[in-house]
Amino acid sequence: MRINRARLAESMDALGRIGETPRGGLNRVALTDDDRRGRDLLVRWMKEAGLAVTVDQMGNIFGVRPGTEARPPVFMGSHADSVPTGGKYDGQLGVLCALETLRTLNERGARTPHPVGMIVFTNEEGARFQPAMIASGVMAGKIPLEDAYNARDRDGRRLVDELERIGYLGSEPCVPRPMRAYLELHIEQGPILEEEHLPLGVVEGIVAIAWSRVTVHGVQDHAGPTPMRTRHDALVVAAEVVGGVRQIARKIGGDLVATVGRLDVVPNIPNAIPGRASFSVDFRDPRESTLDRALSMLDRVVRAAAKREGVRAEVEHYWRVPRTFFDREVVDAVEEAALTLGCGHRRILSGAGHDAQYMAAICPTGMIFVPSRAGRSHCEEEFTDLDDIEHGANALLLACARLAGAGPATAGRAL
Amino acid sequence: MRINRARLAESMDALGRIGETPRGGLNRVALTDDDRRGRDLLVRWMKEAGLAVTVDQMGNIFGVRPGTEARPPVFMGSHADSVPTGGKYDGQLGVLCALETLRTLNERGARTPHPVGMIVFTNEEGARFQPAMIASGVMAGKIPLEDAYNARDRDGRRLVDELERIGYLGSEPCVPRPMRAYLELHIEQGPILEEEHLPLGVVEGIVAIAWSRVTVHGVQDHAGPTPMRTRHDALVVAAEVVGGVRQIARKIGGDLVATVGRLDVVPNIPNAIPGRASFSVDFRDPRESTLDRALSMLDRVVRAAAKREGVRAEVEHYWRVPRTFFDREVVDAVEEAALTLGCGHRRILSGAGHDAQYMAAICPTGMIFVPSRAGRSHCEEEFTDLDDIEHGANALLLACARLAGAGPATAGRAL
Repeated sequence: MRINRARLAESMDALGRIGETPRGGLNRVALTDDDRRGRDLLVRWMKEAGLAVTVDQMGNIFGVRPGTEARPPVFMGSHADSVPTGGKYDGQLGVLCALETLRTLNERGARTPHPVGMIVFTNEEGARFQPAMIASGVMAGKIPLEDAYNARDRDGRRLVDELERIGYLGSEPCVPRPMRAYLELHIEQGPILEEEHLPLGVVEGIVAIAWSRVTVHGVQDHAGPTPMRTRHDALVVAAEVVGGVRQIARKIGGDLVATVGRLDVVPNIPNAIPGRASFSVDFRDPRESTLDRALSMLDRVVRAAAKREGVRAEVEHYWRVPRTFFDREVVDAVEEAALTLGCGHRRILSGAGHDAQYMAAICPTGMIFVPSRAGRSHCEEEFTDLDDIEHGANALLLACARLAGAGPATAGRAL
Repeated sequence: MRINRARLAESMDALGRIGETPRGGLNRVALTDDDRRGRDLLVRWMKEAGLAVTVDQMGNIFGVRPGTEARPPVFMGSHADSVPTGGKYDGQLGVLCALETLRTLNERGARTPHPVGMIVFTNEEGARFQPAMIASGVMAGKIPLEDAYNARDRDGRRLVDELERIGYLGSEPCVPRPMRAYLELHIEQGPILEEEHLPLGVVEGIVAIAWSRVTVHGVQDHAGPTPMRTRHDALVVAAEVVGGVRQIARKIGGDLVATVGRLDVVPNIPNAIPGRASFSVDFRDPRESTLDRALSMLDRVVRAAAKREGVRAEVEHYWRVPRTFFDREVVDAVEEAALTLGCGHRRILSGAGHDAQYMAAICPTGMIFVPSRAGRSHCEEEFTDLDDIEHGANALLLACARLAGAGPATAGRAL
């Protein structure tokens, strides 16, 4: 049993046209009109595949194919939202490989004791509403539903209002439900698989992630007649901290990555001394203790920079996802699928956060990585070769069938 | 002859309500709907004052009160646009004091050989369309009309289209016309008058100004799986230059002021390494040679920071206004008005750019400053005491009457 490569490629093309950028990337930010159009297409396909489709309170879309027994389902899934100038593989690929797996099971008339389903998660990227992975976070009980509903985008719009506006505020409770397993296929977003010429990564876990928000309150004034000695410039402080964050990564070294990805200045015009600057800090490391150390260094850097400029600054450490270890049985199932397919693979740790990170708190969870060209993602240049995608999708199919308890008959055909 | 303080205060209140912020400041950015509403009110008042009102190709509004002879007019003026979270004095005050002067001349039946008029300039702040003072720049022949028309705001809208949209794309050529003099009353926007307890500044000139734009082209990538060693982060470079600009001011010292007021990051989300960062640099100093030195230091700082991060960066030195010396006769007329009024005053240099800077290339020009509380402006806390405003407006009236050649009869009543 193998997936249909041409059908998968066709679906990738069709979904990738919704929110496509002029340079061939994807701009389909969560809960925008394009996100709705993407969701509508997915729901149509899911229904055409005979799945029972439901939407929960966070807009997560579930589609389930019945099993032969009343057992908890195996779910596959990923997200369909992108960053503003992102690529066509991050998220979308996992959703479409899950769909292709279900289509293949249908086509082959495969009977599995456990039902098999797919999930399309809401706002995984966190580009519009923070934090990222907010919908799986609510499902796992790690983020209160009310907090998620009240998350606001740059323009002050609430997540719940945007969910309702695009017609995806569902009624199913967003809570942990019995699941046999959760399996997510995703692009690696790093350079390792490509460097080692391996089409497949057997993901063992995800690094710990900490997000902070720093707000510097300076004194807005005219850039001309205000002497240097009397200035309290919020951006000067923010800039010093951006440099400081880079220094923290250098001092701690190892696997720590540190990024200031967002910075907003007020009033942001050439001839006013910035009165306010706020920015994000993203730290990731396999070890929790390293994150603790980085966060306290950040506190010190902010305090020192603010003091030098005579301004007030606030640091909020508002989101943290602990180091995740995936389930041994699921990881083994992925590895066995790779062996069955005879394709090169290695165990690997994810440096990016995924909904699988929260799902691991609900049920046995694992992930499959496919290579990213030049390790690049969250950009329009994001690309994965279709040969690699085919390997990944087949591994997803085989691992899923195994976890769903496909009997010797199906397994025989499958393997 | 003196202005009517209550009438002036009433007009300030009425115009200040258009675009008023919740905290009592002003948000009436150029060519927005609120700018149109403000302009409409001014035009109504100008017509009620019997002025002949015309609008030129840059949306500058002219209102002229006839003289007794066919001579070039004396113009007063300023701008009616504000920065996004600005105050109710910057610009607006000069326009309303000009109007109050004309109303007073009417009321007293003053006859002047030279006509007396007022100008409301378009987009002085440069908050929406760069550069600042764009409309007087065109008038003085320093900025091509086509360049000004093609200036775009953040959303890509062209200045000319917005002028047309709000109904202020006039037909009068925006070129130098014969003018006896140009006089602009403005808040100081600096701390000197307040520190010295003087209600009036006799402005001798304006510092030289240089605006640059720096664009850093990094490599957008995922903030998680991208190792620190392979990053090319545009914001890290920008931040280093922000610190470098502060250092340039420190090293050169003296009167140089240096500001990065605007910084835009792409894609500006927490979990993507910034692929692009662009920012403004504003240098001002009384000496041209100091600006030359600062600009070449900026070039070096950008080059070094970009090289360290392995990225490309462009620096455009796109706008420069030379040091302006105001006309001796006009400066003297302002000083004599202050002496006549018996109010404390001093000669002063402006650290802020004004339309008067370009007007000085067209005709004899001068300015009157009134104090700014705590020296603050371009912020909602901007404030000038009404007593000081009254002194300033009366000085404008007297200086204007003198320059317009008010005869002994008028002068007698005037002084």
